[in-house]
Amino acid sequence: MKIALDAMGGDFAPKAVVQGALLASKEVSKDTTLVLVGQEEAIRAEFTEGIPANVEIVDAPQVIGMAEHPTKALSQKPQSSISIGYQLLKNKEVDAFCSAGNTGAMLVGAIFSVQVIPGVLRPTIISHVPKLDGSYGIILDVGANTDCKPEVLAQFGEIGAMYCQHVFKTDNPKVALLSLGEEEQKGNLHTQAAHQLLKKNERLNFVGNIEGRDLFNESADVIVCDGYVGNVVIKMAESYYEILKKQQYSNPFFDNFNYEVIGGSPVLGINGNVVIAHGVSNDKAICSAIMLSERLTQAELYQKIQHSLKEQNN
Amino acid sequence: MKIALDAMGGDFAPKAVVQGALLASKEVSKDTTLVLVGQEEAIRAEFTEGIPANVEIVDAPQVIGMAEHPTKALSQKPQSSISIGYQLLKNKEVDAFCSAGNTGAMLVGAIFSVQVIPGVLRPTIISHVPKLDGSYGIILDVGANTDCKPEVLAQFGEIGAMYCQHVFKTDNPKVALLSLGEEEQKGNLHTQAAHQLLKKNERLNFVGNIEGRDLFNESADVIVCDGYVGNVVIKMAESYYEILKKQQYSNPFFDNFNYEVIGGSPVLGINGNVVIAHGVSNDKAICSAIMLSERLTQAELYQKIQHSLKEQNN
Repeated sequence: MKIALDAMGGDFAPKAVVQGALLASKEVSKDTTLVLVGQEEAIRAEFTEGIPANVEIVDAPQVIGMAEHPTKALSQKPQSSISIGYQLLKNKEVDAFCSAGNTGAMLVGAIFSVQVIPGVLRPTIISHVPKLDGSYGIILDVGANTDCKPEVLAQFGEIGAMYCQHVFKTDNPKVALLSLGEEEQKGNLHTQAAHQLLKKNERLNFVGNIEGRDLFNESADVIVCDGYVGNVVIKMAESYYEILKKQQYSNPFFDNFNYEVIGGSPVLGINGNVVIAHGVSNDKAICSAIMLSERLTQAELYQKIQHSLKEQNN
Repeated sequence: MKIALDAMGGDFAPKAVVQGALLASKEVSKDTTLVLVGQEEAIRAEFTEGIPANVEIVDAPQVIGMAEHPTKALSQKPQSSISIGYQLLKNKEVDAFCSAGNTGAMLVGAIFSVQVIPGVLRPTIISHVPKLDGSYGIILDVGANTDCKPEVLAQFGEIGAMYCQHVFKTDNPKVALLSLGEEEQKGNLHTQAAHQLLKKNERLNFVGNIEGRDLFNESADVIVCDGYVGNVVIKMAESYYEILKKQQYSNPFFDNFNYEVIGGSPVLGINGNVVIAHGVSNDKAICSAIMLSERLTQAELYQKIQHSLKEQNN
């Protein structure tokens, strides 16, 4: 397996990315190679003690900044690390691509290169949600889709369930809709309609609506919502982690919210394995993002989503 | 001042309400009287040590249950504590009404009795948000309006600013829009349009978008969002409080999330002072809800909102 890594992505690139790759090079499977994509000289300069045998470098002279307009940046910078990373992924020269760089550019790049799986209404960015019992659930979408039609929300339920099933190995994952009341008529216009679609989907173990207070309990494995509320939720959770850390309060549940542990957010619904890491990623976070990319690739999730949608459309 | 209290509202009524009224009877101003509305005999039975001089009882033989359909319940039970409480408020026999009962019935009752202030697009339920510096901000809406047009969101900014100004005595309160990025083009279709309306409103100190991570810092005094995301936010905050309490972690900031301290959520945009308390309210929470009702009445907030909207429409 080959995992491409955007060496120029994130606030502390390329140093943190190279350090993260070094950590991951000792953790990944024997048959996994890391492909660092970015300004070759700058990358090489960071490897002060030599380059491990399972690390390769692909030169990409251009860099897309964190604040650049995604579509413009990608078309104006075909030699950027993000553009070249996606080229490698599209040509199947690598099996996964991960980056702590410009999220918008990562998303647009995915759509233009490996493209959306036929039958997928909207690709989605998911986030892992630590549970009080020590396990993880997921929430989707967390920012790629701010306005979601009911059928899009309903499909998030399916995609999310496949993630839990194949990546977390959760049997018959519980899918819930994030709302403001457990009753099915509670919610906004979109979630009310999505509730009905999810309810009649026999492929899903739909458990109904959950509320903001149920995010971390055993109510659901897959929490479906639009990217606006999902983004607010994960950033709020992040802020709690930061506040408690500052207060020097440590606890296994809260420690699981450390982005260094989770590493990144997978992009689902596209023909490839893509993980977007946090812009502030340090070496540990980059290492976790690489490990998540490996896990996603091993699970063959996107191929299973392709297969499932093909069956549904036949 | 007279504050009507729904003695039959909440999971532990009438006991908890009577106990809360007893606590409050010692805390309110000398000229404040509490009017307990509900089944007179049941209420009297709870006053085992006599009824304080500043507590009155108004009989209301019917009770609206927590799960009843709001509109149906109100029309079918004109002798319920919520119906009679609103009658008293409408006839100005009391200055405020508070209840830990059926939220929907409280909201519908307000709209049908004291009615919406002319010019107010949608009445709204707000919630106090503890800040890291020990102060409080507010978030609105938190559940009354799941789908909000841009002009409704923009007006929440005005109503919220008046609340902070007159109830919290915050000078020139900072109004922000809850979104998923600070840039003004970030957000869903409604928040993007609301951003433009808030920006051009010269009466407001609009500070732009904030993210989920900024809820508790100094970024904003008034956080504007639709009732769907607002409800998720406050219930998620509540769950954090409960989790930390179970873990026996105490800290001044987190302790401020205790609903017993805040007491309730004011309904704004109507011609009267109304506070909705938590369904699980105990005596302390009821006492806090009464104190909040008194504070709201002293601030003459609804009269100031009436005045402001009248001026705007002239």
